Amino acid sequence: MTKTQTSGVGLVEAKRAHFDTPLTLRSGEVLPAYDLVYETYGTLNADASNAILVCHALSGHHHVAGHYADQPDNIGWWDNIVGPGRPLDTDRFFIVGLNNLGGCHGSTGPASINPATGKPWGADFPMVTVIDWVHSQARLADHLGIKTWAAVIGGSLGGMQALRWSVTYPERVKNTIVIAAAPYLTAQNIAFNDVARQAILTDPEFYGGHYYEHNARPVRGLRLARMLGHITYLSDDQMGAKFGRGLRNGNLSFGFDVDFQVESYLHYQGDKFAGYFDANTYLLMTRALDYFDPAREENGDLTAVMKRASSDFLIVSFTTDWRFSPERSREIVSALLAAEKNVSYADIDLAFGHDSFLLDDPYYHSVIAAYLQKVPS
Amino acid sequence: MTKTQTSGVGLVEAKRAHFDTPLTLRSGEVLPAYDLVYETYGTLNADASNAILVCHALSGHHHVAGHYADQPDNIGWWDNIVGPGRPLDTDRFFIVGLNNLGGCHGSTGPASINPATGKPWGADFPMVTVIDWVHSQARLADHLGIKTWAAVIGGSLGGMQALRWSVTYPERVKNTIVIAAAPYLTAQNIAFNDVARQAILTDPEFYGGHYYEHNARPVRGLRLARMLGHITYLSDDQMGAKFGRGLRNGNLSFGFDVDFQVESYLHYQGDKFAGYFDANTYLLMTRALDYFDPAREENGDLTAVMKRASSDFLIVSFTTDWRFSPERSREIVSALLAAEKNVSYADIDLAFGHDSFLLDDPYYHSVIAAYLQKVPS
Repeated sequence: MTKTQTSGVGLVEAKRAHFDTPLTLRSGEVLPAYDLVYETYGTLNADASNAILVCHALSGHHHVAGHYADQPDNIGWWDNIVGPGRPLDTDRFFIVGLNNLGGCHGSTGPASINPATGKPWGADFPMVTVIDWVHSQARLADHLGIKTWAAVIGGSLGGMQALRWSVTYPERVKNTIVIAAAPYLTAQNIAFNDVARQAILTDPEFYGGHYYEHNARPVRGLRLARMLGHITYLSDDQMGAKFGRGLRNGNLSFGFDVDFQVESYLHYQGDKFAGYFDANTYLLMTRALDYFDPAREENGDLTAVMKRASSDFLIVSFTTDWRFSPERSREIVSALLAAEKNVSYADIDLAFGHDSFLLDDPYYHSVIAAYLQKVPS
Repeated sequence: MTKTQTSGVGLVEAKRAHFDTPLTLRSGEVLPAYDLVYETYGTLNADASNAILVCHALSGHHHVAGHYADQPDNIGWWDNIVGPGRPLDTDRFFIVGLNNLGGCHGSTGPASINPATGKPWGADFPMVTVIDWVHSQARLADHLGIKTWAAVIGGSLGGMQALRWSVTYPERVKNTIVIAAAPYLTAQNIAFNDVARQAILTDPEFYGGHYYEHNARPVRGLRLARMLGHITYLSDDQMGAKFGRGLRNGNLSFGFDVDFQVESYLHYQGDKFAGYFDANTYLLMTRALDYFDPAREENGDLTAVMKRASSDFLIVSFTTDWRFSPERSREIVSALLAAEKNVSYADIDLAFGHDSFLLDDPYYHSVIAAYLQKVPS
């Protein structure tokens, strides 16, 4: 394990695209217009055949790689995999990252101004789901002159978007890379999301989702949601190895302040996240996870859905991921095999649970790199 | 699986014992006096050699079996295992259940009046730990004329009390039955407890633990804590089998109200619990869990601690329990074997996760019954 200290792509800039063709969402609601914030790395080739779309997970955004001129320490969340000579090789590919619709990093979302009221959308922002994101991303592809993606890639909720791309726009995806994902959430997955949402929804500072107008933020609820999320992102073994039963100050307090290092870690993570993330976006992202279930369109038959795809597939899971365990990836692999698709599968032995997909592990990265070697650019 | 519909022991009554010898707690604090509420079933024999102590888990209490004259539907929480001909056979044994110190079912706890102030203890109630409970239970044994327990039994946190009894009062325990427990909590276990506590501690209605005086209750936080607890008590498979992705009303709401049956279940359980349980007791019980780690007294050597015991042991785990997995029970078994104790171990294949210990399963109950058959009464 090595940590990438410097960005491979160097200076980057966020861009903004405005779309004023109304977007009909899965719910039936119509979003009249929207902005998407995005970044690109590398050069689009003449026939626009070397583009890779990176889809983000629950708390991700468009700043995938590189750093900003005025924020040299703000390095993209997946910088370790993007750059010259890196698995998503910017010498060969044109990489696109965006902030999803409903997000809180610049794209239109609950904190944006609702043109109908002149006030932030808040709770009135329509529910967006994975297929809605894919449709909005297809328009971004049009905007960039990309007819077909060389690959669509993502981890966790990002992997679900990649999977959805492959069956919603089969003619526009050559390769689909689905990492640490699942074909749908289990009851336990939904239950964790439910507790996280209830923490936010019942926070007195939530004001029914219209907290912006009250100059308030449901910080307590968002903090709890993130703390809980962190438990599910890490493996039991990793938490044991990292914190064990270690005490922060060597002694028990016989009270409810922080005694154990793991408490200190969770509070830090929760506070940090609650300081910048938007609670309405958190609600929306977790609901999009709950609702994701493409097999529903074929009465639960995932194979029948996957038959629509025409891309090749790489599916990656991690041995210690208990949020979306390797078994969940194998459900996808089985459906793809039954649908007679070309599928490669790697179950990678990494100790870092669900979060393994973000790590700079040589073997993991070599699997992605080897797969992308065969993709023409 | 059959559900016991009628109590085996019939009408029961709660009793109260007052102890006015000060109790020095592990923290160093001294509780000047306290009450314990308890129930007994069966008849203590002439030499008081047939008594079994039932220790309760996080949300349990003294009402282990039977029902009350004025509350015929209020059947004890472990009634299915206690009664004539049942594994804890009241024709042979004298069964004792109590509400632990710090509890909220009648024994002295945070909601009791602090004699020093004339107001509820609230946050000033001293932290009680598993060894403190064992000391207080030893006094209850004295009060009942029981010098030696034929057995001490408990599930989860109750099993930890049983384990603690075996090494703290080795001369007073003939048999120790530890079900669905662990020798200490992992970092992940502590992390879940931490989120639950933070939900309560950051609830604006908590008032630093003195909510009684504000005529308030941190209901939102307690509800979240219980919802989260329920996820860890059930197995992923069981939640899948029981709820799957079933929708409450057949359709998605495209909002944050209850869509999935599992959400409905969790809200019901959370609301019910938050309606009657005391938040300060919840904090205290989870902290007692975090602090439990008898091996600390021997620099982490559980075998060295268990060498102090003179009882025989039955250790029981459940295959689908991921809160305290079978591996955790086997840590206890290994230490007992290394300490050259007589130990029986059963890993029982039940689908109900941690909560399996409360179930009326014939095989599980036959294991307990068979073990207790050999115990003289």
